Amino acid sequence: MMKQNIKIRQVNLKNIRVTDTLLRKEMELVRNTVIPYQWAALNDQIPDAQPSYCMHNFKVAGKITRERERREVYTTPVYPTDHICVWPEDVEHPEDRFYGFLFQDSDFAKWIEAVAYSLEQFPDPELERTADKAIELVCAAQQPDGYLDTFYIINDITKRFTNLKDNHELYCLGHLIEGAVAYYEATGKDKLLLAASRFADCVAEHIGPEEGKKHGYPGHEIAEMALARLYELTGDEKYLRLGLYFVNERGKRPYYFDIEHDRKEETDDKLRYQYHQAHLPVRDQSEAVGHAVRAVYLYSGMADYARLSGDTCLKEACEKLWEDIVSRKMYLTGGIGATHIGEAFSFAYDLPNQTAYAETCASIGMIFFARRMLLLDQDAKYADIMERELYNGVLSGMSLEGTSFFYVNPLEVLPEACEKDERKRHVKPVRQKWFGCACCPPNLARLISSIGSYIMSESEDTIWIHLYAGCTFTKEFGEGNVIVTMESRFPWDGHVRIQVEGTIDHPLTIALRIPDWGTDYQITGLEGAEAVKRKGYLYLTKVWRSDSLEIVFPMSIRLIDADTRVREAIGKAAVMRGPVVYCMEEADNGRDLHLLRMDEHAKYYAEEKQIGSETVVAVKAEGFRQEKAEDGLYHLHMPAQYKRTELVWVPYYTWANRGEGEMQVWTRY
Amino acid sequence: MMKQNIKIRQVNLKNIRVTDTLLRKEMELVRNTVIPYQWAALNDQIPDAQPSYCMHNFKVAGKITRERERREVYTTPVYPTDHICVWPEDVEHPEDRFYGFLFQDSDFAKWIEAVAYSLEQFPDPELERTADKAIELVCAAQQPDGYLDTFYIINDITKRFTNLKDNHELYCLGHLIEGAVAYYEATGKDKLLLAASRFADCVAEHIGPEEGKKHGYPGHEIAEMALARLYELTGDEKYLRLGLYFVNERGKRPYYFDIEHDRKEETDDKLRYQYHQAHLPVRDQSEAVGHAVRAVYLYSGMADYARLSGDTCLKEACEKLWEDIVSRKMYLTGGIGATHIGEAFSFAYDLPNQTAYAETCASIGMIFFARRMLLLDQDAKYADIMERELYNGVLSGMSLEGTSFFYVNPLEVLPEACEKDERKRHVKPVRQKWFGCACCPPNLARLISSIGSYIMSESEDTIWIHLYAGCTFTKEFGEGNVIVTMESRFPWDGHVRIQVEGTIDHPLTIALRIPDWGTDYQITGLEGAEAVKRKGYLYLTKVWRSDSLEIVFPMSIRLIDADTRVREAIGKAAVMRGPVVYCMEEADNGRDLHLLRMDEHAKYYAEEKQIGSETVVAVKAEGFRQEKAEDGLYHLHMPAQYKRTELVWVPYYTWANRGEGEMQVWTRY
Repeated sequence: MMKQNIKIRQVNLKNIRVTDTLLRKEMELVRNTVIPYQWAALNDQIPDAQPSYCMHNFKVAGKITRERERREVYTTPVYPTDHICVWPEDVEHPEDRFYGFLFQDSDFAKWIEAVAYSLEQFPDPELERTADKAIELVCAAQQPDGYLDTFYIINDITKRFTNLKDNHELYCLGHLIEGAVAYYEATGKDKLLLAASRFADCVAEHIGPEEGKKHGYPGHEIAEMALARLYELTGDEKYLRLGLYFVNERGKRPYYFDIEHDRKEETDDKLRYQYHQAHLPVRDQSEAVGHAVRAVYLYSGMADYARLSGDTCLKEACEKLWEDIVSRKMYLTGGIGATHIGEAFSFAYDLPNQTAYAETCASIGMIFFARRMLLLDQDAKYADIMERELYNGVLSGMSLEGTSFFYVNPLEVLPEACEKDERKRHVKPVRQKWFGCACCPPNLARLISSIGSYIMSESEDTIWIHLYAGCTFTKEFGEGNVIVTMESRFPWDGHVRIQVEGTIDHPLTIALRIPDWGTDYQITGLEGAEAVKRKGYLYLTKVWRSDSLEIVFPMSIRLIDADTRVREAIGKAAVMRGPVVYCMEEADNGRDLHLLRMDEHAKYYAEEKQIGSETVVAVKAEGFRQEKAEDGLYHLHMPAQYKRTELVWVPYYTWANRGEGEMQVWTRY
Repeated sequence: MMKQNIKIRQVNLKNIRVTDTLLRKEMELVRNTVIPYQWAALNDQIPDAQPSYCMHNFKVAGKITRERERREVYTTPVYPTDHICVWPEDVEHPEDRFYGFLFQDSDFAKWIEAVAYSLEQFPDPELERTADKAIELVCAAQQPDGYLDTFYIINDITKRFTNLKDNHELYCLGHLIEGAVAYYEATGKDKLLLAASRFADCVAEHIGPEEGKKHGYPGHEIAEMALARLYELTGDEKYLRLGLYFVNERGKRPYYFDIEHDRKEETDDKLRYQYHQAHLPVRDQSEAVGHAVRAVYLYSGMADYARLSGDTCLKEACEKLWEDIVSRKMYLTGGIGATHIGEAFSFAYDLPNQTAYAETCASIGMIFFARRMLLLDQDAKYADIMERELYNGVLSGMSLEGTSFFYVNPLEVLPEACEKDERKRHVKPVRQKWFGCACCPPNLARLISSIGSYIMSESEDTIWIHLYAGCTFTKEFGEGNVIVTMESRFPWDGHVRIQVEGTIDHPLTIALRIPDWGTDYQITGLEGAEAVKRKGYLYLTKVWRSDSLEIVFPMSIRLIDADTRVREAIGKAAVMRGPVVYCMEEADNGRDLHLLRMDEHAKYYAEEKQIGSETVVAVKAEGFRQEKAEDGLYHLHMPAQYKRTELVWVPYYTWANRGEGEMQVWTRY
């Protein structure tokens, strides 16, 4: 076993400064556009948008909590708790009702998490003051026993913890912890962290293995990985135990969700349990099933506990689930969740292009999962997926201006079908402003703001470089430091320059990931370094002083096939260059993309192209356009006629930034 | 205007005897298997099947009607009428409740119609006695004012005619008329006909243009064409007026379905009105939309009234709607209804193979529509579609043993997807025994039993031959007759022998349809006949004595392309021979049909093949099987490797008679 395995950790955002052209721009979009927009949304100040009611609910809950404290008895009115969302038009309209989705509290938590990461890269006293005030409001809603979920505080506190399956209390807990830890790490302020810890304490009082407690677990996972993070920050084993309990309890029989809902018998609808990944104990799970976001959040938590507890059985389950996703259930773009029914995984190799779900949040979840697998096992295959998700399935979720968002990321779009075919209604041909159920935009905000912490990992004696994004990372030692400065124009250019400045006298290892698409790389500057290749990383060990490494990864254009079991891609190929997946758009290629054919033997070349404010590398090649045959719905077969034409591909993540039009990733050859 | 136009009529089943090998076998299946099974189903005697409750409901309604007549006041209990179906397990279980779908009465009507046609070809006193007893039961349920719908008689008679949109009273009326007319024509017995007429009279008392009546029309069309048929039999113009009123009222604003449901404003959900073809006045409709069966039933009725009233505007609407279907919205098999959502038409050229709905009943409805268009305009294009529907989309609905049925007729099936992908749950990879909602099997029964009347039409001086099915047709004149005997092995062999024996002294025209696929035919025996070609028919006029016509239609194998706007068929071709559409099945070609490729230049040859009890003509050719590439979900493009292999196609209608397996109509070339 490698020494690093037990000490490896993700780098602290404080120690890394992202300078990368592409990612820095995205981070600035989040800082300047998404975070303020999101704050306005939380406060119901976006014209023409469904109000969030998030901060409204915290204020109402705060008032109720104060009243309860004063009177010491609960005299507030009781409202039903069996609806997933309520809007003012649906009810008699007293001021002090809960509105919105029952998980609306998490909107704040996601926002504060994004704010925290952003403050680490862009200090901003005014934003910090706004955040502090918001935290005051949130903490004021906390019940004396630590409980902090406004849906139940407002509606009926006696019903709390009675519907873990659907009612998202533990989901809100998870997000609150994530936000609170991030804010503490960014600012050193612990008010929200204490509130989140107290909520976790309260949950631990009510749920757990002991008699008299509920033996339940979250319907929507995230508390698992959040509690691991809280444990790692605080060292308090109570949180480790609670999170691990959630992981271990899931899927045991009789099913907790049946007990909770007073079902006497198991339903024979397997999907009902699979949706929540509760169909089997997690260590027996080997196939990724059910709601894709929930799934990868769970697997991320499982990977955390595998690392923290050294549970190899749990690690093996993570490896099997990972393998099932990446070798059978993942779109080329990294998208996961092939069906909108249950926003779920479909069966192996069922990857329909037009009806894909491939939720932005699920791709983000895959990055969470990948990072955790990297901490368990430094195998570049995990970082390869992290990179694929980042430059494709994740960035596609946000417009180049940061003002509109995709939840669903299809691999082929015919706008007419999205409009007229109810089976494709979930697919939007243009990004949408914001959604009543605000998961993807804030999730994007928190991922992009913290992207620095995904670029590298570190241990006592090693720095792993996973992503070749421009940045400066400082690793402190008692007697000095090592500063790693990386310059690149990734993903457009394969040249990477790594400058290492060291003031320590002992050797340090820098491990460079060799991408699966870039094994034909060239490197200079290895003089004096001991070089070892292992699991896709090139480990370079030396005493670093002032050293330059120059690496050139081949940015050749690749035509990609899918496994022949992927029926939707049969006879078709896609274009990639480096980690970037390309697509064809109507804007460049005209209508009827299905009539286009690639020429396998043509010369494919890269060319800079402006898309909105973004300069990207496009791909061009000669190909064919099949002549239309529109003389009757069915007619005698005639050899298809083709005209030569220039085909243009643009990076998938930039699609739908030039109006509504057709798009496709896979093209006939 | 042609003289025949005003006098043309379908031939009477009494005058035609079907001897055709294929169709006679199907008729015998219906007689010997489907009709008895259906009778058992109506009486809830099928083990392991959801009971129909159809005859139960008539018995209960009969009891209530008798009680009401005795007491002259309504004292029976009242039950809710706002559910589409009720099963005994859902309610307190008194004996005398209504059970099943609210349109369950129509099960009887469809059965009696099939029985009637069957009796014309297969006299059977025992079956006739059973039918007479059933008619007794049904008629006993009729209210004094003629009303005859057990759902409302049993549940709450005061609510009748209050939900024409959903509650299928007028649908039941329509089927009752169809069954009653057929039974009268077959047996001369008028008991059921009188009951149906009285029900129609009752409806006319409550619905119509006069003040105080409801200005409504059926939610599910069929009464339109049924009333036209009742008018043609009885000559009573009341039925013509009522049916035409239904046609004319549909789609007027404000929408009757909104008035009825007390909606103050139109909903902006166009689909809501389109589902019922009520979005526009029918004469303004040019696009086939909504529920496909309802649509073609309506269009059939429109064609009837266009003919009966000489309304050219209505005729033009029919022509446009026909054209929209056959040139933009019909599968190669004749299947219509591309989406299971609303069992409806999708947008133009959206013809997905795996998720097709293509309901058997909708293909049957297309035959109804085609026959009526033929009476309006003797253009062979209508008979071409009738033939396509019959040998493909219709016959596929029933297994070769007549014991199991498809509602949905997809053009491609992967059994795993039907099982695991909820979006394909409506598609079954094997035919099912019977369905709770029994529309397709009885519809098949009534079509097949009456197929004789589709083979030809006649007028005073002309016989049109639309289908080349073996039969003997006798046309009586005062002074003698003409007997046309047709022999063929259609659709397997293109040779047709028509023997005409005449004892009349004046000329008669026999019009032979030249199929769109058979324009390269050869004919002998024309001596002495005046021959004129018009709209796809060859009109032969002479004084017939004892004449033989021999026609040879080319049964060459055709590769068929779709319009390039059909995205699901791009780069693919299908096989047809004569009117028969072929498909590939796993049983002959192994798994992974998507890996197979046709060779456009190969020699395609026909070969007899046994499928179950059926001897059919299969098609074979050399083609290719793409080698599997299963080394990673995504990998560098490699020129696809192919092995030569024999490809085997079987008639589409025979698919899924050899167990569960993959099937596809369209194959890559």
